[in-house]
Amino acid sequence: MFQKPKGTRDFLPSEMLKRKFIAQKLREVFDNYNIKEICTPTFESFDLLCKKTGDEIRSQLFVFKDHGDREMGLRPELTSSVARYFINEFKNVPKPLKFYYLTNCFRYENPQAGRYREFWQMGCELIGSNKCTADAEVLNLAIEGLKHINMKYEINIGHLGVLKGVFEEFNLSDDESTQIRRLIDKEDIDGLKEVLNVIESEKGISISNIVFEILDLKGNKEIIDILIEKLQKFPKSIEALENLKEILEYVEHEYIINFGIARGLDYYTGMVFEIYGTKEGAKQVCGGGRYDNLIELFEGEPTPAVGFAYGFDRIMLNIEEPEVNEEVIYITTAGNDKELTKESFKLAKKLRENSKMVELDLMNRKLNKSLNFANNIKATKVIIIGKKDLENGMVSIKDMVSGEQIQVKSDELLNYL
Amino acid sequence: MFQKPKGTRDFLPSEMLKRKFIAQKLREVFDNYNIKEICTPTFESFDLLCKKTGDEIRSQLFVFKDHGDREMGLRPELTSSVARYFINEFKNVPKPLKFYYLTNCFRYENPQAGRYREFWQMGCELIGSNKCTADAEVLNLAIEGLKHINMKYEINIGHLGVLKGVFEEFNLSDDESTQIRRLIDKEDIDGLKEVLNVIESEKGISISNIVFEILDLKGNKEIIDILIEKLQKFPKSIEALENLKEILEYVEHEYIINFGIARGLDYYTGMVFEIYGTKEGAKQVCGGGRYDNLIELFEGEPTPAVGFAYGFDRIMLNIEEPEVNEEVIYITTAGNDKELTKESFKLAKKLRENSKMVELDLMNRKLNKSLNFANNIKATKVIIIGKKDLENGMVSIKDMVSGEQIQVKSDELLNYL
Repeated sequence: MFQKPKGTRDFLPSEMLKRKFIAQKLREVFDNYNIKEICTPTFESFDLLCKKTGDEIRSQLFVFKDHGDREMGLRPELTSSVARYFINEFKNVPKPLKFYYLTNCFRYENPQAGRYREFWQMGCELIGSNKCTADAEVLNLAIEGLKHINMKYEINIGHLGVLKGVFEEFNLSDDESTQIRRLIDKEDIDGLKEVLNVIESEKGISISNIVFEILDLKGNKEIIDILIEKLQKFPKSIEALENLKEILEYVEHEYIINFGIARGLDYYTGMVFEIYGTKEGAKQVCGGGRYDNLIELFEGEPTPAVGFAYGFDRIMLNIEEPEVNEEVIYITTAGNDKELTKESFKLAKKLRENSKMVELDLMNRKLNKSLNFANNIKATKVIIIGKKDLENGMVSIKDMVSGEQIQVKSDELLNYL
Repeated sequence: MFQKPKGTRDFLPSEMLKRKFIAQKLREVFDNYNIKEICTPTFESFDLLCKKTGDEIRSQLFVFKDHGDREMGLRPELTSSVARYFINEFKNVPKPLKFYYLTNCFRYENPQAGRYREFWQMGCELIGSNKCTADAEVLNLAIEGLKHINMKYEINIGHLGVLKGVFEEFNLSDDESTQIRRLIDKEDIDGLKEVLNVIESEKGISISNIVFEILDLKGNKEIIDILIEKLQKFPKSIEALENLKEILEYVEHEYIINFGIARGLDYYTGMVFEIYGTKEGAKQVCGGGRYDNLIELFEGEPTPAVGFAYGFDRIMLNIEEPEVNEEVIYITTAGNDKELTKESFKLAKKLRENSKMVELDLMNRKLNKSLNFANNIKATKVIIIGKKDLENGMVSIKDMVSGEQIQVKSDELLNYL
């Protein structure tokens, strides 16, 4: 028997209904922010896709050669594509530009719960503003989207500049900083202690205490002022804290400040955040922040940018079942007769034109079998067309919930549905 | 500079808006038919994708190996996937089942107008009914979808059984029948004449006249009765004509009957149809029909099926520009002041919660530059927050169409938008 490829999914109609419902709710919020939905190709040149991460991402990508022997890959995320899109199509347009996407991505994952080889992301990129208001706009959007779909969440907000200011003051190399940031991202505290110890003894400095003080201080925005006091010797850190403080003045939502948010990718430059669902453990459903070097990385003019992506599948795991009620009307004939069938098509057309969801008997079933089928497809009402009724311009309506059956004039049918 | 892959497209926001608008309108019609939207993986095993056509389709597919060395391909159409989906997930569910999809497909095409390597199809499959009502339901849906988006079209309906009945009566081989059907599909009249001549002289029969008589007779449903008269010696042809006649009893739309509709693919078995747009020449925007062997071909139990697919990109070329009007409200401050900016975020939140499309100044622009930008993004109204106004609980609204500016109480703002 043919099977779907490993790690992919067939979405059943009921699941699709829920996904479309939630997608629509999220789009409402993004649209109200006047962010423009865009669409880029499903595959891109391999060179583009590995630009952010280097060739090491190859093992996670679905790569193929097109017939002109050019190496292509299925996109593993959208930020690279949006950067290319911006540079190709919009570089000379007044800033800022705000784009969003809701689409599928592909990654070669080892199958495990909630990880798929084809998965969906919804994200936005705000390109061209380095102002705190732009960071705030993106944070508000990420939060308000989840509120609009009634998802319970926790958001942690940090700023890469705080630790960076410390590293710079202690003259750490880029390699050392990157290594430390990655250990923080992985929450590998033992590894982090070890690396800091090595650096301390090599350089004859004392850096561990201040790093762990920064990492341990989590809470509401008061901790920013506490850290400003503590980090007076680190001017770049103070700058980052002042930046975050202004951003948060425009964010009227609950959040936790946490400078342990380091994000996996190296291209973030300022404010960063992660959002976790509360329903299935504490899985991350969103990540984002500022990446002012992104456009330059893709060979565009230096242009500041800030954005985020939701894991749409993760969101679907975290929401309560949305109530999607559908009223389905089933039309059947009592007796096999072309004239009755013609009448059922006419009625169906009229009802559908009036936005009713209508299913016809397409199997020439006998009435009792037809009613069974109506039950099976969860029809809420069944319209029965009989020979005598038709002559008198009448039809019967059976309410499938109450079981009640009434006769009404055929041309007044709409009033009863 | 990085470029999108050859033959693919970046959709600009304005184009996306139109595509989403038309997709939504089409979904309304499909939903009212109680057809269920489904989603299958973007790539499938190569074996599945070439099942209908044989390995010869390889040159048109994007094929790659996954990391388990299994050969995969990006889907060139959806019928194979839907057949697999039905067999995997739904084979024991009461019939009929009705599925639709609106999604992207991939084919290695040589670039030419209106042909893309990534393109979109919307289609439906009605599985499990061999009744005329099922054929009629699918025809009505295909037509009513296009009517709902106000697209001008021409539909040609045929039936493969008519010519098949003739071929069988003359004992043509399967190869001969297939060859003839393909020539008819390509409208290669000279080639067809030649092949028929060869067959005539080989078999000592006279078949050309009747074939061309059938092909030349195009028109409304009266031609069915004319052909029934003419084809009395061909009982299978009569059966097909009676089948088509009953189908059309349930189709209350204009159409042209044309037995030259042969469809490219070999798996069609009964009624077939094609729809052409009238705006850009006579390009085909839809094709479909009955394929009762389809599910069996994919190793499921023999199950009748009928369906169609729209070329969504072709439809977009054929519709009039849909009017998609958006009211965009732009909020800016008069003067650079954190309190004013805070107020602008508060107002934006409130308006967005009331389903207004709101854009904020995220560049700290001076007022005159901000108004230029508002013009640029086609904002319909600009809300200006000034220091004195804020103290008095007032804001200004500038109508960008009339140029008129009024002052209103901040908490009554919604009444003026």
